[in-house]
Amino acid sequence: MSGSRVATLFTVLAAGLSLGCPPQDTRTREIVERATAGRGAYATLAHLTDRIGPRLSGSDGLEKAVAWTKGELETAGLDGVHTEKVMVPHWIRGVETGRLVAPVDRPLALTALGGSIATPPGGIEAEVIEASSFDELKAAGDRVKGKIVLYNKPILPNSEDHGYGSAVKLRTEGASEAARLGGVGSMVRSLGTASFRIPHTGAMRYKDDAPKVPAAAISAEDAELVHRLISSGEPVRVRFTLGCETLPDAESANVVADLRGREPGGEIVLIGAHLDSWDLATGAIDDGAGVAIVMESMRVLKSLGAVPRRTIRAVLFTNEENGLKGGKGYAADHQGDWARHVAAIESDSGGGRPKGFTVKAGEGGVEMIERLFPGLSGSPDFDIKKGGGGADIGPLLAGGVPQIGLRQDGTHYFDWHHSPADTLDKIDPEELSLNVAAMAALAWELAEAPGTLPRPAPEVDAEETAPAKPAVK
Amino acid sequence: MSGSRVATLFTVLAAGLSLGCPPQDTRTREIVERATAGRGAYATLAHLTDRIGPRLSGSDGLEKAVAWTKGELETAGLDGVHTEKVMVPHWIRGVETGRLVAPVDRPLALTALGGSIATPPGGIEAEVIEASSFDELKAAGDRVKGKIVLYNKPILPNSEDHGYGSAVKLRTEGASEAARLGGVGSMVRSLGTASFRIPHTGAMRYKDDAPKVPAAAISAEDAELVHRLISSGEPVRVRFTLGCETLPDAESANVVADLRGREPGGEIVLIGAHLDSWDLATGAIDDGAGVAIVMESMRVLKSLGAVPRRTIRAVLFTNEENGLKGGKGYAADHQGDWARHVAAIESDSGGGRPKGFTVKAGEGGVEMIERLFPGLSGSPDFDIKKGGGGADIGPLLAGGVPQIGLRQDGTHYFDWHHSPADTLDKIDPEELSLNVAAMAALAWELAEAPGTLPRPAPEVDAEETAPAKPAVK
Repeated sequence: MSGSRVATLFTVLAAGLSLGCPPQDTRTREIVERATAGRGAYATLAHLTDRIGPRLSGSDGLEKAVAWTKGELETAGLDGVHTEKVMVPHWIRGVETGRLVAPVDRPLALTALGGSIATPPGGIEAEVIEASSFDELKAAGDRVKGKIVLYNKPILPNSEDHGYGSAVKLRTEGASEAARLGGVGSMVRSLGTASFRIPHTGAMRYKDDAPKVPAAAISAEDAELVHRLISSGEPVRVRFTLGCETLPDAESANVVADLRGREPGGEIVLIGAHLDSWDLATGAIDDGAGVAIVMESMRVLKSLGAVPRRTIRAVLFTNEENGLKGGKGYAADHQGDWARHVAAIESDSGGGRPKGFTVKAGEGGVEMIERLFPGLSGSPDFDIKKGGGGADIGPLLAGGVPQIGLRQDGTHYFDWHHSPADTLDKIDPEELSLNVAAMAALAWELAEAPGTLPRPAPEVDAEETAPAKPAVK
Repeated sequence: MSGSRVATLFTVLAAGLSLGCPPQDTRTREIVERATAGRGAYATLAHLTDRIGPRLSGSDGLEKAVAWTKGELETAGLDGVHTEKVMVPHWIRGVETGRLVAPVDRPLALTALGGSIATPPGGIEAEVIEASSFDELKAAGDRVKGKIVLYNKPILPNSEDHGYGSAVKLRTEGASEAARLGGVGSMVRSLGTASFRIPHTGAMRYKDDAPKVPAAAISAEDAELVHRLISSGEPVRVRFTLGCETLPDAESANVVADLRGREPGGEIVLIGAHLDSWDLATGAIDDGAGVAIVMESMRVLKSLGAVPRRTIRAVLFTNEENGLKGGKGYAADHQGDWARHVAAIESDSGGGRPKGFTVKAGEGGVEMIERLFPGLSGSPDFDIKKGGGGADIGPLLAGGVPQIGLRQDGTHYFDWHHSPADTLDKIDPEELSLNVAAMAALAWELAEAPGTLPRPAPEVDAEETAPAKPAVK
């Protein structure tokens, strides 16, 4: 982002904020200035990615991240910093190889999907049948028997989430749908918006009523090659080997830290992101950036020396990627406090320039946020509209907790998402700081506002049916 | 490319051509129409990449490509189709692994450079010293001893060749420069303009006066990580293993086919590209596209049923990537005919939209081409200017043969160049056809023109000092 774009956003934020009620106004302007000038979020993200590294559930990396972020929040002088135990799935990758063996011999850029069973040590080999949807697969009927299914549906940069939301079920449920029809394995075209011969991993789940077959992702290029070969009418065969394994659940934790409000035992504004990442890279955009934004927001707010009306609580969730046990655990552990949670804000769509807030609240919720930021709404730089909050805070919907998503520019998000290229270099320090400004300012405004957001109708297990990621992703 | 851009270029070509002398004019318009309407080049490229595959010198793939292209040119009814034997280097890749081992443990996306020796079976491990140039390395003096050198110079999309020309020596000569100062290994930041955690290979050469040490490329992301860790002041150590090997030279061949001119034994207009590719992918942009453009140009010209004044000769060169033995062999074998070669045109900068011709000729050469295509020169769509022709035709400069490069849009060329992502999906069939139109039209015009291009001053071994690729790459 150029300096002038930064300046524009800052001006808009400051102008908008200056229309708020006077005491908050000065404070919020100060928050924006401090957040925009600082680079603490980038330093946090650099440590999390370069030093701690990949943070898949069950890994040492994740537990190091739990311990380190807890220590950092303590050092920042926040209140009641603690961890809350969560048991998480422990899946490990192991060896993985893939080859096209007929009609030509070629290596496949392939990776196991999280949760997949292993193949036998020598791998599986079968003819490939291609489908772009479950309907298409079902139409193939008996022809699926004994085959490896390739789900080949490109996601393209032509919509807000690039088609991820509509294609992700092919990854999560494809193996069981294939197995139900007698398929012996499943491969999904990587859910990525760029083609650089890298596979994008992600979670899959077996259904109880279908046999378990191994599931992998292959690069877009390899999916297109298989497609062209199949189109020529010849049988196409692949062989792949996965050495992945699901171990007993591991102990992990959510990290919680408060900036305690003036009313002890009073209301809570939660800001959150998830600590875990996939194992192929260091999770800079997913969701190290969110963690850094949340932690730096807390540091900036604490550094003001002011006490908000309501408590502002940071929650760094564990295990978003393959189980959502952190989000579910927090909601379960705090069920008695659901009514005190007046809002939950999540950042889980990268570290790009902040583009707005999506709001899931009761009638009038969007309008209330718009009144808090009157200069911003509807601006091309920053919009406020209806939409989901984020996967980790989703379980709080059961308690009718208003959900807000901090939305980042997602132009390149799915180029790197879940791939080996999700690394620190994809993050611009200035853009990350603007996210801190947006997150901290909103948290402060909601913690200080005379009223609270209207609550949405409670939804139980909303996260089970929603896509794993906010729509913007 | 949109249909309208295609139409624009076609209109420009046709308008320009209509100013030529009448008999040629009609013929050339017909060439452009036929080439633009057809998709034969794409079909050729699809076979070369999808069916034949990688074509590194010494591989079965390259020899299959020699045999298949010869057969296709014979089937097209061309004259005197034959191969000319060339002995080529035979380097094979083998196992390759890389890890950062201190201060953090991470996998490196690493690949051997073509020509590298192997490491011992257990790999080499050493501290890393970083340099962005040979001068910087030399300034480090004794500190290089016992270290693995990382050449870390980004190439960025900010100039016509994205900085490739100035950085390529770090790849080709870096190992010897490191070894001279006591370095035990060499890694180069991939010469690529996109960051997707993939390594880009390419040729390296050992100098006679330096010990041989293993040489690899690592991804841009990994180079940046090493840089950040070194910047923190801690020792950074890496370990890598290369199993590559140089076998005895192998037999390969250039493929030659003529559209014989009206004057037997007369002058020759050569059009060429190179058949070999790197082994990490299928060489669609480098240089399968060029091969397809040359072959389809010959088919289009033959299909006219007309006999040009001069012979138009296609040469599909072997071994451009790691030895240039094809280009050198052709020049040596045809030394007695240098004077009859009135022009050599090469396509070796991908399959993107044709952007113009670069010309290395005597005084007035550019102007002569401009007169042949009066509507094109200076247009933003298609320019004609001074510049190199291509690596394979470079050795003909010793005979003062005028050199012309068909230049493609190189915006994304170095995103994929020499990487696992150089695959068919990077090519737009329409854009490829436009290149056939440009190549075939120029060849025809030069074969029919009353006069010939002024010859450049002979240069011996020009290719040894020039970058391995035309400036546009």
